[in-house]
Amino acid sequence: MAASERERDTMTVVCWSSHLLLLLPYLLLCVFGPSASHAGKLLVFPMDGSHWLSMLGVIQQLQQKGHEVVVIAPEASIHIKEGSFYTLRKFPVPFQKENVTATLVELGRTAFNQDPFLLRVVKMYMKVKRDSSMLLAGCSHLLHNAEFMASLEESHFDALLTDPFLPCGSIVAQYLTVPTVYFLNTLPCSLDLEATQCPVPLSYVPKSLSFNSDRMNFLQRVKNVLLAVSENFMCRVVYSPYGSLATEILQKEVTVKDLLSPASIWLMRSDFVKDYPRPIMPNMVFIGGINCLQKKPLSQEFEAYVNASGEHGIVVFSLGSMVSEIPEKKAMEIAEALGRIPQTVLWRYTGTRPSNLAKNTILVKWLPQNDLLGHPKTRAFITHSGSHGIYEGICNGVPMVMMPLFGDQMDNAKRMETRGAGVTLNVLEMTAEDLENALKTVINNKSYKENIMRLSSLHKDRPIEPLDLAVFWVEYVMRHKGAPHLRPAAHDLTWYQYHSLDVIGFLLAIVLTVVFIVFKCCAYGCRKCFGGKGRVKKSHKSKTH
Amino acid sequence: MAASERERDTMTVVCWSSHLLLLLPYLLLCVFGPSASHAGKLLVFPMDGSHWLSMLGVIQQLQQKGHEVVVIAPEASIHIKEGSFYTLRKFPVPFQKENVTATLVELGRTAFNQDPFLLRVVKMYMKVKRDSSMLLAGCSHLLHNAEFMASLEESHFDALLTDPFLPCGSIVAQYLTVPTVYFLNTLPCSLDLEATQCPVPLSYVPKSLSFNSDRMNFLQRVKNVLLAVSENFMCRVVYSPYGSLATEILQKEVTVKDLLSPASIWLMRSDFVKDYPRPIMPNMVFIGGINCLQKKPLSQEFEAYVNASGEHGIVVFSLGSMVSEIPEKKAMEIAEALGRIPQTVLWRYTGTRPSNLAKNTILVKWLPQNDLLGHPKTRAFITHSGSHGIYEGICNGVPMVMMPLFGDQMDNAKRMETRGAGVTLNVLEMTAEDLENALKTVINNKSYKENIMRLSSLHKDRPIEPLDLAVFWVEYVMRHKGAPHLRPAAHDLTWYQYHSLDVIGFLLAIVLTVVFIVFKCCAYGCRKCFGGKGRVKKSHKSKTH
Repeated sequence: MAASERERDTMTVVCWSSHLLLLLPYLLLCVFGPSASHAGKLLVFPMDGSHWLSMLGVIQQLQQKGHEVVVIAPEASIHIKEGSFYTLRKFPVPFQKENVTATLVELGRTAFNQDPFLLRVVKMYMKVKRDSSMLLAGCSHLLHNAEFMASLEESHFDALLTDPFLPCGSIVAQYLTVPTVYFLNTLPCSLDLEATQCPVPLSYVPKSLSFNSDRMNFLQRVKNVLLAVSENFMCRVVYSPYGSLATEILQKEVTVKDLLSPASIWLMRSDFVKDYPRPIMPNMVFIGGINCLQKKPLSQEFEAYVNASGEHGIVVFSLGSMVSEIPEKKAMEIAEALGRIPQTVLWRYTGTRPSNLAKNTILVKWLPQNDLLGHPKTRAFITHSGSHGIYEGICNGVPMVMMPLFGDQMDNAKRMETRGAGVTLNVLEMTAEDLENALKTVINNKSYKENIMRLSSLHKDRPIEPLDLAVFWVEYVMRHKGAPHLRPAAHDLTWYQYHSLDVIGFLLAIVLTVVFIVFKCCAYGCRKCFGGKGRVKKSHKSKTH
Repeated sequence: MAASERERDTMTVVCWSSHLLLLLPYLLLCVFGPSASHAGKLLVFPMDGSHWLSMLGVIQQLQQKGHEVVVIAPEASIHIKEGSFYTLRKFPVPFQKENVTATLVELGRTAFNQDPFLLRVVKMYMKVKRDSSMLLAGCSHLLHNAEFMASLEESHFDALLTDPFLPCGSIVAQYLTVPTVYFLNTLPCSLDLEATQCPVPLSYVPKSLSFNSDRMNFLQRVKNVLLAVSENFMCRVVYSPYGSLATEILQKEVTVKDLLSPASIWLMRSDFVKDYPRPIMPNMVFIGGINCLQKKPLSQEFEAYVNASGEHGIVVFSLGSMVSEIPEKKAMEIAEALGRIPQTVLWRYTGTRPSNLAKNTILVKWLPQNDLLGHPKTRAFITHSGSHGIYEGICNGVPMVMMPLFGDQMDNAKRMETRGAGVTLNVLEMTAEDLENALKTVINNKSYKENIMRLSSLHKDRPIEPLDLAVFWVEYVMRHKGAPHLRPAAHDLTWYQYHSLDVIGFLLAIVLTVVFIVFKCCAYGCRKCFGGKGRVKKSHKSKTH
């Protein structure tokens, strides 16, 4: 028995030691992995809404890697709440949560406004001006909050992760002199491209809101150039005040470009499956689809809906978290169209229930969009084509009917449409027939499914997952105190130097001088050779008269 | 006993099953990993020399992932030999291995030629013309080899991996209509940037051979623009004949740009630790440092040299595989300088032994460069600054004394010099003192070691190893039959469309027409208002006279 016990003990030791041997790579990774030895302090200044939700995964990973994460947000935030993997520090702002909610409700209403085009543009302009003044006041309140800012300064953060859609975080970064990582989809008016010194050939890079694809005819290219010229004016109303605020806080002359351009890394929530290929810069990192990585099984309620849908499957319908209501007439038109398809429709809608809602349509206050789209029974996705929804459509390979409302949604819809992965509808002009036809087209015409599946396979075939990439680059900036080696020398040039206009002027002046001298010499030579005779003839002539 | 045996058996089962559980991730990766299920056929058409050696690692990995790799090379190749992980198929060419060797010997001699500058340029031009004609003849021989080409066609390759330094592989790819992956450092005359439609702002992207950094003064920018204008002419001699050859073979009008631009992925053997940050394109993948991943322990011979070096350590000296001889006078100057430093110098040199060689200098026919540079006793690296050597210097953090001879070596040296990681010498003009001082500077001035160590840490801190990245993208192109979604629409535009010149002209014409009409209307209005009186006055005046 003693021998057998010894034998068993020996075996246990052998077994455990071989276990440890197998675990060695993991252990080495844990002990010597680059992340473990560089635990640092990260300040996060997010934007509220879906922008924040897609940033959460990155923050969670960073905390799990041992970093201390502090999130700062206005007290009036809607979605930014306490979390187990970060410290939330809220700062007071001169507006309430209700004000923010009201602006969102109003935004939804503006999108469905049936006024004439010009009036709509004016109303939208006034709204943007109003809303951005409110947000600017919040930013100013933070920057003038000496106690709060001092406490941030004392924390000695290694880096700041922020969404530069509103460049308040950029001012904080410069005030604290910490390296910055941006996390964004895109910035209005190509501010992101300007601040990274990224060239934008207007001949094939469509401007936002142009409805152009990357293949434009002559008139579309004219429109693109005109939009590029005018967008600066459109953006001034929102962004210029941040320049003035920064100038006051930082005690030096600062433009919006100066505010944005020092960022070490730009984590762009896009890729070239969604976007058209164009020039990029070495400090841009593409993490499109970062929002559709985490999947959970469906809850009993939704599982039941899907199972009950039969052979025809389901259609998922959501206009995003920012649109809560639709005008009654439009809602009834939509409900009518939905009733004419054989699929079960799960419609996320918090407004009044349309009276003509068909039996196949289920209204819900919230739906697990990504998980539903991932279900094999999902046949189509009706979306406002926000960048998150578009990526969830791509990841899960679901053809889309797109009803863009504002911002970059039109551009996203155009991209999916040109790739044959969806149909775009003008939500203001569409009829019930249009929506019905669009749905039947993307469901029954196999090319839509094939195209979105092709996009899906291209999108998901990548050497490293977008979440890991984002986490890597945030840590990289923390480890190396920025990434100055990725900053192009273009930042130190004036606009005319950048375009070599002074050099071209100088060379032209030389060429013209040489041409002028050669011409003068020739003229002088000609005069010497033939001039004498000419003068003689002339004088002779004049004398004869 | 039976019970104890059962107990032991049970334990064995438990132990092994838990082993298997731990191994599960590996097993799953092997069974379901994306690479395993997509074994394909890859054609490789490499360049001879160091270009081939750095491609070998990628080929080996691809073969290990189950792909069938066929390498084609001219019978006169020097370095491309049979290998266990690929099938080598040699094709006849109208020259011998001896001819190739002779051109290399001559290249080395040309580099040390002391003729006046203009004569050297003319001689180099004549040599390039001669050598490229020889290589072009080899390419033509292959493309006209109907039997060989037919056999390639029959193999139905999934992709072609080639070095486009000479675009013979590009013609083969178009002939076989297979998607292509390029593997390169850079192409002369910015052909790579032209073919990828990558913008090159001449104000901060230094031209090859300009000796400019990314921060240029006005005259340096003038030089950069002039070089850009003239480089097309310089390149025509080497590259244009490939356009003519392709036109004949493919039976359609083809320029060199047309030949190069269809490549799906450009694997660039550089990164922004070595190179200056500049615009890039989405189908460029940066794999700089791919050549210094594989390290082996030193052989007994070299281990003995290093151990015998004492506290002063060693200096590694190699001018690359292409330079076998140095003029006697220059070799003696070098030997004299090497004798004046306390380090042991390991000099890879196949020419005649300089008579003044000091005791501390050991001549060797070959040295394990990367392994020696990786030794902690290595103090400095004397190099011709070829891209491979530069990366081995960066990877291993060894300060460099650079003696660039031709091609991109001057540019590489400039980059390291501006980063404070090495000293550049003009090999033609330098004296023994210059070399001695340069060596003492990089060894004794701590900033050089600090700078190269900083570059090394930035370079090696990456989310994925360059070898894995290269292998991923070759497999990606094989899986998806190319990467058309990464091809910018710029390829379909003429040069004036690309720069929006037609749009600018059109808008200018409109503005001028409007200005002209407004001016005419104003003039007409003025005439209407004041013109009558004027005319009256005038006529009145004329009458009074």
